[in-house]
Amino acid sequence: MTPSSQNAAMRIPTFADVRIAAGRIAGFAHKTPVLTSRTFNAATGTEVFFKCENFQRGGAFKFRGAMNAILAVADEPRARGVVAYSSGNHAQALAYAAQIKSVPATIIMPKDAPILKVEATRGYGAEVIFYDRYTEDREEIGRRVASERGATLIPPYDHPDVIAGQGTATLELIEEVGQLDALYVCLGGGGLLAGAALAAAELSPACRVVGVEPAAGNDGQQSFEKGEIVTIPVPKSIADGAVVTHLGEHNFPIIREKVAEITTVTDEELVRTMRFFAERMKIMVEPTGCLGAAAAHANAKDLAGKRVGVIISGGNIDLTRFAELVTTGDQA
Amino acid sequence: MTPSSQNAAMRIPTFADVRIAAGRIAGFAHKTPVLTSRTFNAATGTEVFFKCENFQRGGAFKFRGAMNAILAVADEPRARGVVAYSSGNHAQALAYAAQIKSVPATIIMPKDAPILKVEATRGYGAEVIFYDRYTEDREEIGRRVASERGATLIPPYDHPDVIAGQGTATLELIEEVGQLDALYVCLGGGGLLAGAALAAAELSPACRVVGVEPAAGNDGQQSFEKGEIVTIPVPKSIADGAVVTHLGEHNFPIIREKVAEITTVTDEELVRTMRFFAERMKIMVEPTGCLGAAAAHANAKDLAGKRVGVIISGGNIDLTRFAELVTTGDQA
Repeated sequence: MTPSSQNAAMRIPTFADVRIAAGRIAGFAHKTPVLTSRTFNAATGTEVFFKCENFQRGGAFKFRGAMNAILAVADEPRARGVVAYSSGNHAQALAYAAQIKSVPATIIMPKDAPILKVEATRGYGAEVIFYDRYTEDREEIGRRVASERGATLIPPYDHPDVIAGQGTATLELIEEVGQLDALYVCLGGGGLLAGAALAAAELSPACRVVGVEPAAGNDGQQSFEKGEIVTIPVPKSIADGAVVTHLGEHNFPIIREKVAEITTVTDEELVRTMRFFAERMKIMVEPTGCLGAAAAHANAKDLAGKRVGVIISGGNIDLTRFAELVTTGDQA
Repeated sequence: MTPSSQNAAMRIPTFADVRIAAGRIAGFAHKTPVLTSRTFNAATGTEVFFKCENFQRGGAFKFRGAMNAILAVADEPRARGVVAYSSGNHAQALAYAAQIKSVPATIIMPKDAPILKVEATRGYGAEVIFYDRYTEDREEIGRRVASERGATLIPPYDHPDVIAGQGTATLELIEEVGQLDALYVCLGGGGLLAGAALAAAELSPACRVVGVEPAAGNDGQQSFEKGEIVTIPVPKSIADGAVVTHLGEHNFPIIREKVAEITTVTDEELVRTMRFFAERMKIMVEPTGCLGAAAAHANAKDLAGKRVGVIISGGNIDLTRFAELVTTGDQA
């Protein structure tokens, strides 16, 4: 499948959809805390507000989009179930949201997904089907399973209700802390970033929204510069939530229009950031969740004296893996 | 020194002192967040409110007592400096509080204190003097150094202003979440527990305050049962903030009068709890900080349907040590 072959009738979400999502998921999603760090501010000369989606239900922002997408499906088709393919957090989030609404869920996960995420997904009552992310097409498997079961496919990022749901994190952040000069958001398929861009453009129009990718997989940066969606081979990075091959079709037009810049950070910078979060801020953040803070740290010079938002996307990391990364600095 | 040889004119603090402390440290100490966990509540059948002092300045509740004690010293003697002996968090806290008030600080620390704590203490500008906690008397060293320098000795727990400062954590918790049926508090020398008991007795009189010690060092439990302060050899436990040999003289009368029970947990239970906090709640908690939650978990049967407060005392743990503990379950 090429990116342009699907979604003949694409519905690109707007800020109005983010507002609707916020109302819809209220009472289901947590209003997560915003933390600050004197140490980080002193080291960078900025004032940074960390929106802690690692404290979200299911341990990541993904619950917002998944819950919003499930609530947006009509009762009758919803009863036949939902299907998702995901490298991890979306899987858990959809399984969790489905359990809350008593909807059957089937999740297509890579064979090498972190054990913690597989177990958590099953713990929410979902059926897990594995695939090989280096040889098989998860989107094709997802469509086939959904069609066989009459279930609704809810993709991890390329979907208007998912994007709108993810945008509620930024909506909450700006409503709580006020106008921002810049906002750093991790970028995989573009669900969180597109949602953040919709919310920031409306609520803090002068805010420079910056997407952050792992250096090993900068398809978003390439797409942004080229003006069209670029597909890359599956990248290898410790940021397992951001190792996607291309931006979503619903996501790209929003990112192209409302995002100021896409930057990258190395796995070494992610490990250093993960260590900082654990040692100094006492929070567990998964590598993908460190993308925004690592980039803000690297760009401290340009941010001097500014008010900067950073979305911490999630905290789902196997403790054995965490221990390896923080003690050895290993990047593999 | 025997416990009865000091403090001829002992001033036992009351709830009024806790109130004064709250006003004094406002603007210096963080009002730390209260977190809840659906998973913990479901597993125990209780409603637990975790007061997260790991998010306190300096990474532990100790900042409250240290800041209150420093602010309570008159300007002239304060300018000559402060001295503390501490297994770690009080050292950092006093150094930090002293730095904020531009007061010179000297800290007597055990040679085997966690590196992170020694470095953090020096990072706050304090001078560190080491001693051997198995052969030397830190209290005697502290008094000698204070006397040589004309400085004020601020002990880690056996001091009315320290106790009153620590009590502000419980004051905040109850003011935020309302009446509690039980409150679990870690117990080393008794600063946090005595302060908690003062606040709970006044603000939530029906609340059963429970002190929790490492099983390897239950001097508090023995003292509570015997009705007098029992001194034990230096215990060995991963709860390095609670391996003291005896309760403080200012602390014991309050604990005896206002605490309902003193219980213990094993190092294995502490490791399991530390893992739970990291994996499920995404927070870093040091072993000592896990004492209250581990005991509440162990006593879930008696707490069914109850509203339970747990004070998480701190989050200062070297990441290498954390990695060892959570991956191997090693207790040494």
